[in-house]
Amino acid sequence: MVGGSLDAFIGEVHRKAAALDSAFELVCGAFSSSPEKSKATGEALGLNPNRVYGSYKEMIEAEVKLPENERIQAVSIVTPNHVHFDPAKLSLENGFHVIIDKPLAFSLDEAIQLKEIVDHTGLILAVTHTYTGYPMIKEAKHFVDSGKLGDVRKIYVEYPQGWLSTPLEQEGNKQASWRTDPTKSGEGGAVGDIGTHAANLAEYVTALKITELSADVNITVKDRLLDDDSAALLRFNNGATGVLMATQIAAGEENDLKLRVYGEKAGLEWTHSDPNTLMYKPLDGPSQRLRAGTGYLSEAATLNTRTPAGHPEGYLEAFANLYLAFHRAVTDHINGELKPLSEYDFPDVEDGVRGMAFVKTMIESGKSDKKWHKITG
Amino acid sequence: MVGGSLDAFIGEVHRKAAALDSAFELVCGAFSSSPEKSKATGEALGLNPNRVYGSYKEMIEAEVKLPENERIQAVSIVTPNHVHFDPAKLSLENGFHVIIDKPLAFSLDEAIQLKEIVDHTGLILAVTHTYTGYPMIKEAKHFVDSGKLGDVRKIYVEYPQGWLSTPLEQEGNKQASWRTDPTKSGEGGAVGDIGTHAANLAEYVTALKITELSADVNITVKDRLLDDDSAALLRFNNGATGVLMATQIAAGEENDLKLRVYGEKAGLEWTHSDPNTLMYKPLDGPSQRLRAGTGYLSEAATLNTRTPAGHPEGYLEAFANLYLAFHRAVTDHINGELKPLSEYDFPDVEDGVRGMAFVKTMIESGKSDKKWHKITG
Amino acid sequence: MVGGSLDAFIGEVHRKAAALDSAFELVCGAFSSSPEKSKATGEALGLNPNRVYGSYKEMIEAEVKLPENERIQAVSIVTPNHVHFDPAKLSLENGFHVIIDKPLAFSLDEAIQLKEIVDHTGLILAVTHTYTGYPMIKEAKHFVDSGKLGDVRKIYVEYPQGWLSTPLEQEGNKQASWRTDPTKSGEGGAVGDIGTHAANLAEYVTALKITELSADVNITVKDRLLDDDSAALLRFNNGATGVLMATQIAAGEENDLKLRVYGEKAGLEWTHSDPNTLMYKPLDGPSQRLRAGTGYLSEAATLNTRTPAGHPEGYLEAFANLYLAFHRAVTDHINGELKPLSEYDFPDVEDGVRGMAFVKTMIESGKSDKKWHKITG
Amino acid sequence: MVGGSLDAFIGEVHRKAAALDSAFELVCGAFSSSPEKSKATGEALGLNPNRVYGSYKEMIEAEVKLPENERIQAVSIVTPNHVHFDPAKLSLENGFHVIIDKPLAFSLDEAIQLKEIVDHTGLILAVTHTYTGYPMIKEAKHFVDSGKLGDVRKIYVEYPQGWLSTPLEQEGNKQASWRTDPTKSGEGGAVGDIGTHAANLAEYVTALKITELSADVNITVKDRLLDDDSAALLRFNNGATGVLMATQIAAGEENDLKLRVYGEKAGLEWTHSDPNTLMYKPLDGPSQRLRAGTGYLSEAATLNTRTPAGHPEGYLEAFANLYLAFHRAVTDHINGELKPLSEYDFPDVEDGVRGMAFVKTMIESGKSDKKWHKITG
Repeated sequence: MVGGSLDAFIGEVHRKAAALDSAFELVCGAFSSSPEKSKATGEALGLNPNRVYGSYKEMIEAEVKLPENERIQAVSIVTPNHVHFDPAKLSLENGFHVIIDKPLAFSLDEAIQLKEIVDHTGLILAVTHTYTGYPMIKEAKHFVDSGKLGDVRKIYVEYPQGWLSTPLEQEGNKQASWRTDPTKSGEGGAVGDIGTHAANLAEYVTALKITELSADVNITVKDRLLDDDSAALLRFNNGATGVLMATQIAAGEENDLKLRVYGEKAGLEWTHSDPNTLMYKPLDGPSQRLRAGTGYLSEAATLNTRTPAGHPEGYLEAFANLYLAFHRAVTDHINGELKPLSEYDFPDVEDGVRGMAFVKTMIESGKSDKKWHKITG
Repeated sequence: MVGGSLDAFIGEVHRKAAALDSAFELVCGAFSSSPEKSKATGEALGLNPNRVYGSYKEMIEAEVKLPENERIQAVSIVTPNHVHFDPAKLSLENGFHVIIDKPLAFSLDEAIQLKEIVDHTGLILAVTHTYTGYPMIKEAKHFVDSGKLGDVRKIYVEYPQGWLSTPLEQEGNKQASWRTDPTKSGEGGAVGDIGTHAANLAEYVTALKITELSADVNITVKDRLLDDDSAALLRFNNGATGVLMATQIAAGEENDLKLRVYGEKAGLEWTHSDPNTLMYKPLDGPSQRLRAGTGYLSEAATLNTRTPAGHPEGYLEAFANLYLAFHRAVTDHINGELKPLSEYDFPDVEDGVRGMAFVKTMIESGKSDKKWHKITG
Repeated sequence: MVGGSLDAFIGEVHRKAAALDSAFELVCGAFSSSPEKSKATGEALGLNPNRVYGSYKEMIEAEVKLPENERIQAVSIVTPNHVHFDPAKLSLENGFHVIIDKPLAFSLDEAIQLKEIVDHTGLILAVTHTYTGYPMIKEAKHFVDSGKLGDVRKIYVEYPQGWLSTPLEQEGNKQASWRTDPTKSGEGGAVGDIGTHAANLAEYVTALKITELSADVNITVKDRLLDDDSAALLRFNNGATGVLMATQIAAGEENDLKLRVYGEKAGLEWTHSDPNTLMYKPLDGPSQRLRAGTGYLSEAATLNTRTPAGHPEGYLEAFANLYLAFHRAVTDHINGELKPLSEYDFPDVEDGVRGMAFVKTMIESGKSDKKWHKITG
Repeated sequence: MVGGSLDAFIGEVHRKAAALDSAFELVCGAFSSSPEKSKATGEALGLNPNRVYGSYKEMIEAEVKLPENERIQAVSIVTPNHVHFDPAKLSLENGFHVIIDKPLAFSLDEAIQLKEIVDHTGLILAVTHTYTGYPMIKEAKHFVDSGKLGDVRKIYVEYPQGWLSTPLEQEGNKQASWRTDPTKSGEGGAVGDIGTHAANLAEYVTALKITELSADVNITVKDRLLDDDSAALLRFNNGATGVLMATQIAAGEENDLKLRVYGEKAGLEWTHSDPNTLMYKPLDGPSQRLRAGTGYLSEAATLNTRTPAGHPEGYLEAFANLYLAFHRAVTDHINGELKPLSEYDFPDVEDGVRGMAFVKTMIESGKSDKKWHKITG
């Protein structure tokens, strides 16, 4: 693991997600740019002190020298965005698979380079667009794929948060600080942090691509340096249209990603605050409340659940589902049995590149008086 | 009453709304352009046959000749949009107050003319933007007014319906036919039918005005002549931004107008499917579930409820609240005691004009490659 | 109308319910035991002063002397329980149909006498068990009747209120005072006021009868004279079992009557706080959310709705549905075309008698150490 | 681990719960009464084959001979009820701490014996009443403890499931088979399987004890040997009353444990289908929606959450919270620093004994014509 010292948020999430199903064992790490913090984290996690490193470079260099059956198989990168590219590149170039927090990189350029390295090395790179790991998102995708909606016509995806309603970054909040710092986050604030999740979810479930968008991108809180609020009108490659809303100044909201997809024959609704439910709304009959863990779901949904209906699973389980899928791919790769990536069903480097293209286009559009901007990437 | 024959929808709603609190007694009508249908409707309603007229002209002309204590006081106009202006004008010019279904008129021009007539005659004209009649909408307005949100920053308003997902207008559905017919509805389809409600609600609750918008306006169903789907990015006169969504092709949705307002200090959420609840979401404490009929609500909310908490009131009661407010103004006018209109708290001719300006700007913006369009009106 | 002066709650509800659909016109009343209050109420309601009476006796005596086409057709009795029997008896004996607030009477004896008078006179008597008037309750009944649940096995019905959590009756609250006064309410407090609604609803929807019960009946608030809390284990005539909970000391609850019925093949759930929804839960598929006003409902549900799906109807509309059904029966009676009462689908004198038998048995059981008590009546 | 072969449900839950926070490492097991199945399970879990045993006796005997720093610290018992007592006894007598699935034992007698052994050995025994591990249950307990409800007056606890609506046990369903088999489950079916959870939760949150109950216990499905449905009127040691419902024939229900507690000043509501929310309902103000992961919660709630508000945690996390608390106690015990058990806040052997006393009293009451039965134990 690169990053994820004890006071970080997402590093611990990655660790628990990997531990839940015992898919991966955490054996080494460079948990902080401060060697002391890295060491303290390793100790707290009960790691062998010899494998707690002062930097990711040190880690990669040391691990690659270990015998094959001792060295790591994959690197989990959980640092802020500006420290994604270098450790990912180094890991891949030394033969290690990579799982990396979103967005993939600091810029679209970096993302494209990473894709080239992945293509070149043939290694596995997963990006943790967590929400695609939920079983009822798998079911939603299955409903669209199997034609139950007919042609998709309208997509609403929203991601309201309220935690940046005040200038937390000026009050020493670590999570707020790097997320609102353009030297660490890149071009996008809310757009990169949560807008990418929203765009990814919409594309994942519908198997469509956003081709054009018209964005309103705002800095709401005084003296903030990056956007904390955004919305966009969307056009998709099948002619469908949509609306995306991603904001961090919706006072009182938590983390309520919500997706609604409407087709000729039916609508679907999924919301993160009730993740084990998917509402299916046919045109001419009662809405149906599909529930995780039941016997009537698709194979993909079932594969991503651990308990019977009525036993809520949540964010860590969804995250763990990504780790499981990544683990399947890594294992098959090691055994020389890698199948086409789509069969593993995790967000890969292409999703990561699209995410960065989305950020770039949103920011451009937000500054432009032209209505529609094409996404390329 | 003008319009509202037995097979119409909104006419019966107006009648029940007026009857619920016995605010107005229905004494005469021209219920249809077909004298036979008008007559049959009057009979079914138990009216004096002498006061069931073959046309609104006939009605106004006859009524104005009756002694003052027998003739009507106000005219309720519930026809399709293209038959709003003429009967409203005639009524006002003959001294009758008017309550009229939204949108106010067929075009912005007509609306402006009506405003001039109202200004000139000093009579009362109410437009039935029903949703402003709900008690928890009054409470939401009260929360904003009293500063509980601080400055408003973000407004989401959405109005998803699904009933026009198929070409109902080609299958003889009367409601669908005139709503999708530009010669009867005017420029806007969904934009006029439900978008105006959404825009009106956002402005009403926040006491802000939409100054600019960027719209995506679509005809989704093949061969339809007017838009059935729309969305817009919004800018308000205090610098707040917003998103409006109004669609009639959201398969499986009913009539779920929803408003969310976020300020510096808190958010508010109201949804038409649970109209007796208002969620208040302060930044630093638990969300609160405010309920109609309770003792802790504002005077305006209480005035618009009939039963104690836990006794659901709905659409007809909200509609009746408009009639009650209109009735108060009419009574005061008749008694020569009219107060400033804002004290009666019903949507008036200015709201009607703004609605038509909204429609015009949405349609223009939808066709334009320029991003932002100013609303004037 | 007997009772229902301006400061009463339920009288105004009856008036609005009758007015909503213009089923009945209110023409006279004895609104209070105080002639002054009666007069003031009549004036406020715009009645002919000659027909505002000082007592119900005076009213009945005067009205019966009017010509047939002028006199009243039916009497609405909305007084506290101890003033149900006498005016009902007098009305029936003078040829007037009666609609009466629940519970039917002060005691089971009175109720049985009323039934005899009804049987003898052949007149119509309706008891306003409001909740049976909701369209989705009609739908629930239809689901049970049509076998979609298979044999009913388990019934949960609950009616939690919180408004009597404090000794309101000692603070001059009029509603609380008579409801907690055994000389006005009869044997039952919460049991009579809301328990009867719960029992009636369970029996209505399932078409079953409670045969035995085991009750826990409590006075929770100090110095209160009647029960404010109760629960019972139930046995039904088909072998099904159930639980009934009726309490007025559930702090923070409003008026949340809820019914759940489970059969061999499916369950049903309806709750008063979301009355336009009925959840249907088949054993082996997703739950379905049935909604009032949609096209897929039964005839009985549709008959009891006024607006399309998504336009919430509530308590007053449900109440008005009882008035409509009563009106149909009264009209047919007057026209000499009365059909079997069950076809009109309103709670009648037999339901009223059962309600009183329920109260009596609950109170007896609450005081007894024997587990099961049979309901007779 | 004792029990928990690959086709079991709860064994895998225990394993994931222990793995999530890396509190315990699974190092050995006797996963089945079939040595082959045990071996296969151990292999699938990647255990050292030398520590995969053919029986729990073999396991305890072998482990106790290992050097202290190699041998197990605690035994997790996840077998059906009839195989709880023997392995628990043997583990404790050999110095191993025990965590055991509920109910504690096959009978009250066994439970009392286990308590004596625990008292005698001074070792730690935890019973996995999972639902007490939820953060919002901790918060509910905190609200009651800190007096926000005043004296508790009424408690409703319900646990409806539908999965035993059909005779699954006759169709080879393993989960159903042992649960409906009196030789494996003991006296209680639904009463033991889920009723004990409900009773435990009510007592845990309120810190009250059920002193008497009056139960209705039913076998609903033909030819079933144990109860599949039950309900009871409850009396608590402070004078409060309550209702408990535990059924497995509520067709269409999943696993919706729900607790409502009403005091003099407020009510609380928690439901397992939305476990990260606690509704707090004060008498005179709006209900409040308290949410897991927020900054305003008590220490106990916060200690039992892993992610910020809006990141749903669920059943496995609640289960893991029990393991964490048990782990803290075990660690302190090993370090000779054991504090009073209540400080660790997990269900212990006394809770287990009370559970068995509850089952015994429910079954007795169900068969009796006497209304109230005292719980002793």
